[in-house]
Amino acid sequence: MTRWRLTVEYDGGPFMGWQRQDHGPSVQQALEDALERMTGEQAPVIAAGRTDAGVHALAMSVHVDVVREITAHRLREGLNALVRPAPVSVLTVEPAADDWHARFSCVGRRYLYRILNRRAPPALERGKVWHIGVDLDVAAMAAGAAMLVGRHDFTTFRSVHCQSDSPVKTLDRLDVRHKGDEVLVEAAARSFLHHQVRSMVGCLSLVGRGQWRPDEMRKALEARNRAALGFNAPPDGLYFVKAVYP
Amino acid sequence: MTRWRLTVEYDGGPFMGWQRQDHGPSVQQALEDALERMTGEQAPVIAAGRTDAGVHALAMSVHVDVVREITAHRLREGLNALVRPAPVSVLTVEPAADDWHARFSCVGRRYLYRILNRRAPPALERGKVWHIGVDLDVAAMAAGAAMLVGRHDFTTFRSVHCQSDSPVKTLDRLDVRHKGDEVLVEAAARSFLHHQVRSMVGCLSLVGRGQWRPDEMRKALEARNRAALGFNAPPDGLYFVKAVYP
Repeated sequence: MTRWRLTVEYDGGPFMGWQRQDHGPSVQQALEDALERMTGEQAPVIAAGRTDAGVHALAMSVHVDVVREITAHRLREGLNALVRPAPVSVLTVEPAADDWHARFSCVGRRYLYRILNRRAPPALERGKVWHIGVDLDVAAMAAGAAMLVGRHDFTTFRSVHCQSDSPVKTLDRLDVRHKGDEVLVEAAARSFLHHQVRSMVGCLSLVGRGQWRPDEMRKALEARNRAALGFNAPPDGLYFVKAVYP
Repeated sequence: MTRWRLTVEYDGGPFMGWQRQDHGPSVQQALEDALERMTGEQAPVIAAGRTDAGVHALAMSVHVDVVREITAHRLREGLNALVRPAPVSVLTVEPAADDWHARFSCVGRRYLYRILNRRAPPALERGKVWHIGVDLDVAAMAAGAAMLVGRHDFTTFRSVHCQSDSPVKTLDRLDVRHKGDEVLVEAAARSFLHHQVRSMVGCLSLVGRGQWRPDEMRKALEARNRAALGFNAPPDGLYFVKAVYP
């Protein structure tokens, strides 16, 4: 048996999310089904992060155990051929140590949130960005974002369905910048609470619109209360960028 | 009556092309139908370039005559609301002179062709790039592309359905460069023959794969013979970037 480490790109649009569900398609199921058709083996494919419905991945790290002897090249080519037409692509495959775990070995996760900030709605990037038609104040958003960096109780930015043991997390980075007609938010932490990035971006959008002052981000954080939350940004603009390992 | 000048972004994927057709949806029809629902007027929407099925536009210039009094802002907002769910977005609207013509006043057209050059197929950019899984020699492609720049008889790179009076065109620019895991081809000319960009990119891909030497681009050009053509690149990677006016 070999434990394989894969990086996977996917378009979250048609999926109920990463995790296998009874009521709809998932990225995990698409990969597990492709593997079973290829090898006859039923094996769980475990990811660094379990993204929500509609959330994309540029490079999700996953692992899976395969009994059959196979090369890394053939495993990647076979999965990419059989996973079609699901919009999932295996970018890299390499053997990993037996105790390497995509989720539990991961010491850092990075997300990108893309806001299309122009008057006209997206035609080419539909489902891939959050469209906000009024000019956002990016400097104010960056100032508000800076107040969330560090070790805090992020209860305000946590879904009621969050299964994390503790609401205390260390946010290493939350940068906001312009790129063309997009406003990009980049977030890095060892781990995130459920809906944390989308909640933070939702509040930052209020700052960008001038509805919140930047320091209201700190007030929301200090409230430690889900009711202090503005709202979640939609999944369309969210990308899992990278999982970091020691 | 006001002649309006619009710039329009669209995803060519679901369309038979720009031009209105009996047998399927077109970008032109989507815009004309939206205008009619908004104003009750049936007016042709004329574009700088009539893109093929599956070809996208970042900013197509078009014009349309509207009798009803309306502001530029309301025209844009109304069209964007009514054109849905078609993936078409009106970026800008401004009044134009009565004799300004999106097609006949245009003195320059720019196209971008995106090749995703990595082993794994696209998941996020499916339908938006041409996937080539073997490493392309970009320097050889650039050398081959340079041989097509200038005033030439482009019969080799012309569709049999081309309606242009003459196969002689002046290609101002044909640049090839790397950007991340993409190879980008940028083309500029006053006008292009039907399928010219896709034909040139198809041949350049043969150079990139090492199947043609760069100077075989010149031989193909000098043959003035459609049979000397490698093949057309698929429409997925082609974008109309900009129309230039005096």
